[in-house]
Amino acid sequence: MQTLTPRHFALIITLLLVSQAEAQKPDSVIRAIFSEALNDTTAYHHLRYITKNTKGRIPGSKEALLAVEYTRQALTDAGADTVWLQEVTVPHWERGEEKAAIISETFGRRELTIAALGLSAGTSTEGLTAGVVEVHSFDELARLGKETIEGKIVFFNRPVDKTVINTFAGYGGAVNQRTQGPSEASRYGAAAVIVRSVTHALNDFPHAGVTRYAEDVKPIPAAVVSTIDAGILSEALKADPGLTIQLLLTCRNFPDTVSYNVIGEISGSEKPGEFITVGGHLDAWDNSEGAHDDAGGCVQSIEVIRLFSKLGIRPRRSVRAVMFMNEEMTGTGGRAYAAHAMERGEVHYAAIESDRGVMAPRGFAFDASGERLLKLQSLAEWFEPYNIRDFDQGGGGSDIAPLKQLGALQIGYIPDIQRYFWYHHSANDTFEQVNIRELQGGSASMASLIYLLDIYGY
Amino acid sequence: MQTLTPRHFALIITLLLVSQAEAQKPDSVIRAIFSEALNDTTAYHHLRYITKNTKGRIPGSKEALLAVEYTRQALTDAGADTVWLQEVTVPHWERGEEKAAIISETFGRRELTIAALGLSAGTSTEGLTAGVVEVHSFDELARLGKETIEGKIVFFNRPVDKTVINTFAGYGGAVNQRTQGPSEASRYGAAAVIVRSVTHALNDFPHAGVTRYAEDVKPIPAAVVSTIDAGILSEALKADPGLTIQLLLTCRNFPDTVSYNVIGEISGSEKPGEFITVGGHLDAWDNSEGAHDDAGGCVQSIEVIRLFSKLGIRPRRSVRAVMFMNEEMTGTGGRAYAAHAMERGEVHYAAIESDRGVMAPRGFAFDASGERLLKLQSLAEWFEPYNIRDFDQGGGGSDIAPLKQLGALQIGYIPDIQRYFWYHHSANDTFEQVNIRELQGGSASMASLIYLLDIYGY
Repeated sequence: MQTLTPRHFALIITLLLVSQAEAQKPDSVIRAIFSEALNDTTAYHHLRYITKNTKGRIPGSKEALLAVEYTRQALTDAGADTVWLQEVTVPHWERGEEKAAIISETFGRRELTIAALGLSAGTSTEGLTAGVVEVHSFDELARLGKETIEGKIVFFNRPVDKTVINTFAGYGGAVNQRTQGPSEASRYGAAAVIVRSVTHALNDFPHAGVTRYAEDVKPIPAAVVSTIDAGILSEALKADPGLTIQLLLTCRNFPDTVSYNVIGEISGSEKPGEFITVGGHLDAWDNSEGAHDDAGGCVQSIEVIRLFSKLGIRPRRSVRAVMFMNEEMTGTGGRAYAAHAMERGEVHYAAIESDRGVMAPRGFAFDASGERLLKLQSLAEWFEPYNIRDFDQGGGGSDIAPLKQLGALQIGYIPDIQRYFWYHHSANDTFEQVNIRELQGGSASMASLIYLLDIYGY
Repeated sequence: MQTLTPRHFALIITLLLVSQAEAQKPDSVIRAIFSEALNDTTAYHHLRYITKNTKGRIPGSKEALLAVEYTRQALTDAGADTVWLQEVTVPHWERGEEKAAIISETFGRRELTIAALGLSAGTSTEGLTAGVVEVHSFDELARLGKETIEGKIVFFNRPVDKTVINTFAGYGGAVNQRTQGPSEASRYGAAAVIVRSVTHALNDFPHAGVTRYAEDVKPIPAAVVSTIDAGILSEALKADPGLTIQLLLTCRNFPDTVSYNVIGEISGSEKPGEFITVGGHLDAWDNSEGAHDDAGGCVQSIEVIRLFSKLGIRPRRSVRAVMFMNEEMTGTGGRAYAAHAMERGEVHYAAIESDRGVMAPRGFAFDASGERLLKLQSLAEWFEPYNIRDFDQGGGGSDIAPLKQLGALQIGYIPDIQRYFWYHHSANDTFEQVNIRELQGGSASMASLIYLLDIYGY
């Protein structure tokens, strides 16, 4: 009988690996990923904790630091090989009190449901009272000019166009009133700004969000008003153009402070220095539990790590789940992550962002074209049994965008987005609005896509 | 100058019609349908009325008759040319009191959250107390046999398989415990039956539904228990197999009574005797507002009439919106509608049913094959701008199934069904769980499909 030489062992190991690869066909791996995700409740418990126990987690808050600590532990429990925090400089803004009321000689007084815009300047502690000019665009604002605007409260009231099927595009058609409106109004000497909530919903919730002052303007106080109250204010102005609004915002900006991205990594078996990132953002508006935006995207990313670890899927490239800090205000988390990657000379193959809510999965958007897009779209065949069919050209998201300069393929996770803006940036974005099966369909989709990208390397 | 003759007028009219047809290209008509549907709130107000003001509308109830009257008026207001009621014989069953509790020498007493099954026999007014046998299939029931089952309460506890992506298929794999379980258990002398709620959710709601007794068995009392309490009961049985359950159901069956299908019709311009039906069912479980199941399908069908009428779309064939009565118990509404159609010699070209909830639209299921299916699938191109892509082979629904014998093409409206069974047949199926945009995406989809089918005649 012949003795077994090292060469024989090598052959046996090769045969074993081949048969293992045979057993681990993509369809069976993906089936295992979906089954585990749909039966497991870990992600749902994480979502409950983050939404209920770290509510108020705007960048620079102690609640955000609680969320950092919680998700660091969650990534460890999920089976990440390495978990660490990455320092991020963030703004520190506090909301304070916020009150507004219509004062009319015709109607008397009526309170309005408002929320200060993130990073907004406050009023004095006595508040301010001024007449109101309703406008619908920056062109209209310019036409009215300083003589009409000066000393007034500008009320931006252009609604979201509900006939636009892509709700993000509809939102995009109205959101400049919130992001740039206060700055534009300030150029004409406005005293303050009130913006119609940028949402498809007709409801009583103010939908918060950031505003950005140009460097050459005086920051003036700015708030959103609920869409119902925007309608009431508009009607009131028609009946009594001379009405005034009493506005009190005690929000304040403090010096920048430190917070963290939270990163969990499974090391690649063949190319440990090449990365696939999947992430959401950990910060959320302080008036909201931030369940869909974006605790959901964070727990889905943690779940990708858990699914790989639980099912023993060892990727060739390293896979990182990242909880980005400060997406909502100034985007420093995404930039810090890319800057560190660049410093270390990391190779970033692809990045997936989940920041469009965690409704039922529809597919992915790829920032690619030509043959590469076609190859990526061919991956849809593996998702057919899961009724996930939308493999389209499109963008990734703001947190992963800075990785583009490192060549990372940008991918957006796409759930069904029709009802997203009913929740977005409001107190209506609660844990209860998330369905565990829809959430986990997303986790499984992203884990499966990462698995396939890692195999095929498109 | 030549005088205009009738032939000249005919030519002019033809030219006008051609240019109108040119102006009314399918894509512009469909765009108008979606825009009107997404901006309008009529359907949402109807949904609110039906869910909040006619709750309890099981077949044979006065609440069902209220819903009949309300939707009759709504169809008239929507612009139907003709609106009428069609008599339907329906069961009359009343729920009465329902209580169950575990009695254990080890644990003491614990109430269970239950709901009597529709058409179930009641217990005596004193209730009954019996030992419990947990089973997971009819095979297991047969193996245990009369010696184990006789005089006992059979507890059917097979859960829905959450790994099945099509939630209706998952439901279908467990629902025979509710529909046939009581009948099967009765064959072995069981005293009563308790069934685990047939839902993907782990929650405190009992999810109701009908049971059907075979003619040769004694009807025994039967109820569903919430999935949380099913888990508790199962654990309790492991620890104390000798526990008993006290069960009181005062539900009663009364003689059949009369209710109605509600029908609204727009007459066809070219083939008024040929019909396209779109419908949902008006009855709902009495423990539920029945928003997704199926007030939503009804208001979508009314909305199809409103959209055609408001936009001046005059179909070649007659279009009927039908609110079917008694889908939930014995399906007599659907059969009555088909029987009347047959008596009158009507030609039924196609029928669409919306009874899978009113979540975001995904597409349609067609009961067709071969070349006809391919033609129907080619209509998907018109829906691409609305991200409605699922044009698959599949069934219509139980209310339109009897029309198949008249040759009607069976079509099911398919929303995203991932979270449907969280609501189904329970107190969780409320108005608040319906998003107006998702609802109206369905109304617009069905109106558009009817418009296209009427043009192309596939």
